[in-house]
Amino acid sequence: MSLELDPDRLFPVDRQTRTVARNLYERVAELPIISPHGHVDPEVLRRDEAFPDPADLLLSRDHYITRLLHAAGAELTSLGVGRAAGADPRAAWRIFCTNWHLFAGTASGYWLMHQLVTLFEAEEEPSAENADRLFDRIAARLGAPGFLPRELFERFRIEVLATTDDPLDDLSSHAALASDPSFRGRVLPTFRPDAYTDPENPLFRENVERLAAHAGSAPGNYRAYIEALEDRRRYFIQHGAVSADHGVREPLTVDLDDSEAAKLFKLAMQGGLSAEEARVFSGSMLFQMARMSVSDGLVMTIHPGVYRNHSSGTLSRFGSDTGHDIPVGTTFTENLRPMLEKFGLEKDLHIVLFAVDETVYSREIAPLAGFYPSLYIGAPWWFLDAPDAVQRFRSAVTETAGFYRGSGFIDDTRAFLSIPARHDMARRLDSAFIARLVAEGRISRPMAERLITDVTDSQPRKVFKL
Amino acid sequence: MSLELDPDRLFPVDRQTRTVARNLYERVAELPIISPHGHVDPEVLRRDEAFPDPADLLLSRDHYITRLLHAAGAELTSLGVGRAAGADPRAAWRIFCTNWHLFAGTASGYWLMHQLVTLFEAEEEPSAENADRLFDRIAARLGAPGFLPRELFERFRIEVLATTDDPLDDLSSHAALASDPSFRGRVLPTFRPDAYTDPENPLFRENVERLAAHAGSAPGNYRAYIEALEDRRRYFIQHGAVSADHGVREPLTVDLDDSEAAKLFKLAMQGGLSAEEARVFSGSMLFQMARMSVSDGLVMTIHPGVYRNHSSGTLSRFGSDTGHDIPVGTTFTENLRPMLEKFGLEKDLHIVLFAVDETVYSREIAPLAGFYPSLYIGAPWWFLDAPDAVQRFRSAVTETAGFYRGSGFIDDTRAFLSIPARHDMARRLDSAFIARLVAEGRISRPMAERLITDVTDSQPRKVFKL
Amino acid sequence: MSLELDPDRLFPVDRQTRTVARNLYERVAELPIISPHGHVDPEVLRRDEAFPDPADLLLSRDHYITRLLHAAGAELTSLGVGRAAGADPRAAWRIFCTNWHLFAGTASGYWLMHQLVTLFEAEEEPSAENADRLFDRIAARLGAPGFLPRELFERFRIEVLATTDDPLDDLSSHAALASDPSFRGRVLPTFRPDAYTDPENPLFRENVERLAAHAGSAPGNYRAYIEALEDRRRYFIQHGAVSADHGVREPLTVDLDDSEAAKLFKLAMQGGLSAEEARVFSGSMLFQMARMSVSDGLVMTIHPGVYRNHSSGTLSRFGSDTGHDIPVGTTFTENLRPMLEKFGLEKDLHIVLFAVDETVYSREIAPLAGFYPSLYIGAPWWFLDAPDAVQRFRSAVTETAGFYRGSGFIDDTRAFLSIPARHDMARRLDSAFIARLVAEGRISRPMAERLITDVTDSQPRKVFKL
Repeated sequence: MSLELDPDRLFPVDRQTRTVARNLYERVAELPIISPHGHVDPEVLRRDEAFPDPADLLLSRDHYITRLLHAAGAELTSLGVGRAAGADPRAAWRIFCTNWHLFAGTASGYWLMHQLVTLFEAEEEPSAENADRLFDRIAARLGAPGFLPRELFERFRIEVLATTDDPLDDLSSHAALASDPSFRGRVLPTFRPDAYTDPENPLFRENVERLAAHAGSAPGNYRAYIEALEDRRRYFIQHGAVSADHGVREPLTVDLDDSEAAKLFKLAMQGGLSAEEARVFSGSMLFQMARMSVSDGLVMTIHPGVYRNHSSGTLSRFGSDTGHDIPVGTTFTENLRPMLEKFGLEKDLHIVLFAVDETVYSREIAPLAGFYPSLYIGAPWWFLDAPDAVQRFRSAVTETAGFYRGSGFIDDTRAFLSIPARHDMARRLDSAFIARLVAEGRISRPMAERLITDVTDSQPRKVFKL
Repeated sequence: MSLELDPDRLFPVDRQTRTVARNLYERVAELPIISPHGHVDPEVLRRDEAFPDPADLLLSRDHYITRLLHAAGAELTSLGVGRAAGADPRAAWRIFCTNWHLFAGTASGYWLMHQLVTLFEAEEEPSAENADRLFDRIAARLGAPGFLPRELFERFRIEVLATTDDPLDDLSSHAALASDPSFRGRVLPTFRPDAYTDPENPLFRENVERLAAHAGSAPGNYRAYIEALEDRRRYFIQHGAVSADHGVREPLTVDLDDSEAAKLFKLAMQGGLSAEEARVFSGSMLFQMARMSVSDGLVMTIHPGVYRNHSSGTLSRFGSDTGHDIPVGTTFTENLRPMLEKFGLEKDLHIVLFAVDETVYSREIAPLAGFYPSLYIGAPWWFLDAPDAVQRFRSAVTETAGFYRGSGFIDDTRAFLSIPARHDMARRLDSAFIARLVAEGRISRPMAERLITDVTDSQPRKVFKL
Repeated sequence: MSLELDPDRLFPVDRQTRTVARNLYERVAELPIISPHGHVDPEVLRRDEAFPDPADLLLSRDHYITRLLHAAGAELTSLGVGRAAGADPRAAWRIFCTNWHLFAGTASGYWLMHQLVTLFEAEEEPSAENADRLFDRIAARLGAPGFLPRELFERFRIEVLATTDDPLDDLSSHAALASDPSFRGRVLPTFRPDAYTDPENPLFRENVERLAAHAGSAPGNYRAYIEALEDRRRYFIQHGAVSADHGVREPLTVDLDDSEAAKLFKLAMQGGLSAEEARVFSGSMLFQMARMSVSDGLVMTIHPGVYRNHSSGTLSRFGSDTGHDIPVGTTFTENLRPMLEKFGLEKDLHIVLFAVDETVYSREIAPLAGFYPSLYIGAPWWFLDAPDAVQRFRSAVTETAGFYRGSGFIDDTRAFLSIPARHDMARRLDSAFIARLVAEGRISRPMAERLITDVTDSQPRKVFKL
């Protein structure tokens, strides 16, 4: 089975519409990549060393891939996942190739196909038969010139790459990259405080104590806690951060008065909070984060609705981010209201709402972002960052909110090599969607040409203040 | 950028399917407009005076449009919204034209395009550059012959137009129109009692007192209150009303015994109701409304699931209906059961269920309306009255409930000039949907021809007892 | 209006994609039918007698059809529904034919069309005019050679047909079929214990008492109750059962300790359980069923989210399964967690999740089944077993979970004659979906050929351990 990339892939099948889509795509195919939210490790770029091996690079760290192999019966240990590293890379790679059919029709399968062809000139679909040959071909390429992280960064035409970082991270990798005259890309940190603001997080107390110690303040003092967070945000901004990211289970916001918040904070530090009080405190911290964003200008991204570490057995053996985070229902209209009542009409506040529950697209996100100047519609996230899901998303939000309330594409990936595949996919899908509107007589062709450029390039710059 | 209407707009892109759609559309394109639910002010037709100016006519009163401009940073004051009237119409119009790209892909953009071309022969897409010219062209037209409301009513081929009215409205506009031999259209009032039945409504007590005063009864007497409502329904029916409309947040129905209801009513009038008691009382009033509909024959339309006036700052400055009503999740199956247990099998009862939460289409509305003879499926409402959303709707309900459990198209608009654009869109989309079924071999062409006519014309007449 | 089956029905309208779909379909069109879950009465096959009349065969027992006629105003009595049997079959058939247009665009209409053409060579769409002729034609056929149930079973190429049975059923029909050398099909029972495990079921106590009597144990003893259920599962397995089916309203699972469960069980048998306690007990029984499946290997199918017998008036007049079961919202992520924590990583455990709430497809089912090896994605169920709904389903789950986490097609029907129509529809729709992925350059053609065969044939065999 030969492996080829159809030059018209992801475009509408109708001939005439496909031609419109192709023309739109060609206008943006070569534009630089702006990646304002993701999970690439900045150390990879700072060290700029050759990638270790094909399994480590393409498989073991990508929980989209290991999860499907796991569901099919593979042991996570044999795939080199998480803490259980030390698997034989070649054996892990064979498992993957033997199971290539599992990825047919998935976003991961598509991105892998794109990488295998464009980076490694693979000519056959992975299989048990060719697994070793493919492994060797990729391994050889990883050691060859032109394949160091920074070389790829440039080849990929990445202009901005944001990472996601712990509030107490010293951001030395970012500083080193910024001060290195030989590296011209922008690698920006992102402030991600969840583990410091959610009392249900098992590391909450330890984290808050480390935060207090770092700030030289008393660990049980609410005001000092708030100030320490504000201080770390300033530090992040000094290192180039443009946004703060909030991965809450429920996007509740609570406008709590300070003395009440201080009381809950004290209880949280003593471990005496009820589940409902923890929920309220978390909600008040999301509110506080909005207040801080109004003041310091950090864009606020909210990624709610995920039950993290659903399988506690897998968590304890392999750690988090190993494929068992599962979405739950999400609602914004009532949850965000306290925050929006206070800050929703602030024009320099930018809040980007993401969702893994598609029901909120047309029901809540588009109507909210179609009124409040502070709200933007996040690109399809996580399980929804795939061709059909993206078209459902565009279809659900555009008719209410148009094209100018969106965040632009967010790759949100920890798989560095997949970044071009993901952005290329997004550009093709947007071209396809816009082309259909042209073919259905809903927008003019000149308008379509304006839209595809703005959606790809101007919109993420504007929303993320780049 | 020239502005043109594609004669095949909104039809499927596939050539052969498009031909089928066009043939179906041609069978219904010229049929009269039946508009059994909407928000046009009947005074406009009674007075029959020239429309004031382009901004007032097309922009300031249309919260679909002002909300997107507001989200993009425009002040509602500068757009002449609500209580803040007095903006310079020409300046407001310039803001709109400069931001025309914001409406690309939206339903509002489509309707505006349709109006600009068919009513004002606009030849260019609105822009900063042509804003003044376009303003002048429209303004000139507004003063020219053939553009008075009643002339347009006739030109639009409107046969029936229902308005939405306060229970204490004297309906003098309707009476005047009905008794005017020079006006042949039917303009029907609709009984909308929410502000008299929901204790959470800030005007509830005041309204109930006015109702009692009007009826000459004691304001705290439940029985008198119920009779006064029944009496007003009779008054509406005498003035041509065929339906009563219920805009509840949650479609709860409660079969409460009279003494319990009387107790809650008394508390409500004293302002001593808990939130849960208010919810129950509202639910019992929706139940009562069904009981009255069984008795007096008014069609019952239920429009649930909207958080009204989400931004209290905007409400206090500009009033309600200014773009910040936001949907919330809705469920019918359990909420409607008490009402359906009592009245669901009544064959002369017609209840039309609308939704802004798409999840209920296939899950609840179609299954319910596919069994209970009293239930009909409302056309896609509000944010969902747009091309892709309409196709999602048809796709979600038809396979369970077919074409004969639907209400027919409802424009639900306060924008008089957009009525033909909306009905034309609906007819095109229905033609497109039915054409696809033909192309996929799911229905025959003669059946398709029957369906498009019935859906456009017979079905709304039957459901709304016209 | 002539009745014809388009040989390309249900394929994509685009010419080239249609050709791909047709080629894929041809690879699987003639494969044997595997029906691992359904509601055909095994007595029909054991007795192997001629079907009584057209109305009884195609209309009266099919609540998909009678419900739509009922919604349109027909009396269930006149259609011969349920306990109210005794209607004139010819008169019932006339009602159906006169209302044929009600079924345009529905799945039922499509299946009926398929049956009328392929089994009865009908040449016209049913109508008031031809109702009697059609009745006579079908009636004649029912008495003619080749139309006995077992002859049809063979003609339909059914390899496996599972029924759904009461735990105390003696399975004598299955035994008779299995031991009859002249019948080569596999007709398997399915263990369906809901009415024995849900204290809210009106027959719960009576059933549990019968179960205890059958086992010769004390009716109030929890341990004996559990053992009696285990025993009946063994009995079913001895008679060929491969799965147990669970039709819960909410898929809650509770890991309850035995003494607590025993306490609730005792209360349940005394009728003293609160609603919340009943919910917990039901949830613990679903958990117990998973434990038993781990031990005895029965595949576990979960069919949640239906409000059964919504119209109590209809229930009391006509019995259950008469068209008024209505879906409600469903969530799995939190509800299933206790069960998955304990058994989710068991590799020989197969749990198939069905839904009538489409929102869980992309949000919960695909992410869960894309990680847990024990979980499979059930085919679109009930109201969602229809062309557009199937495409929405494939679109929603495939990008996350691929093609190998699905159950394969499940017809779930009590309408024996519709089985080929349903499986043919499923094969066409899968071919259409896969063809689109090829046309969009997302998978190769050889991969598509592998997928269509695996999805149709290997996957149901594997998931149901056939």
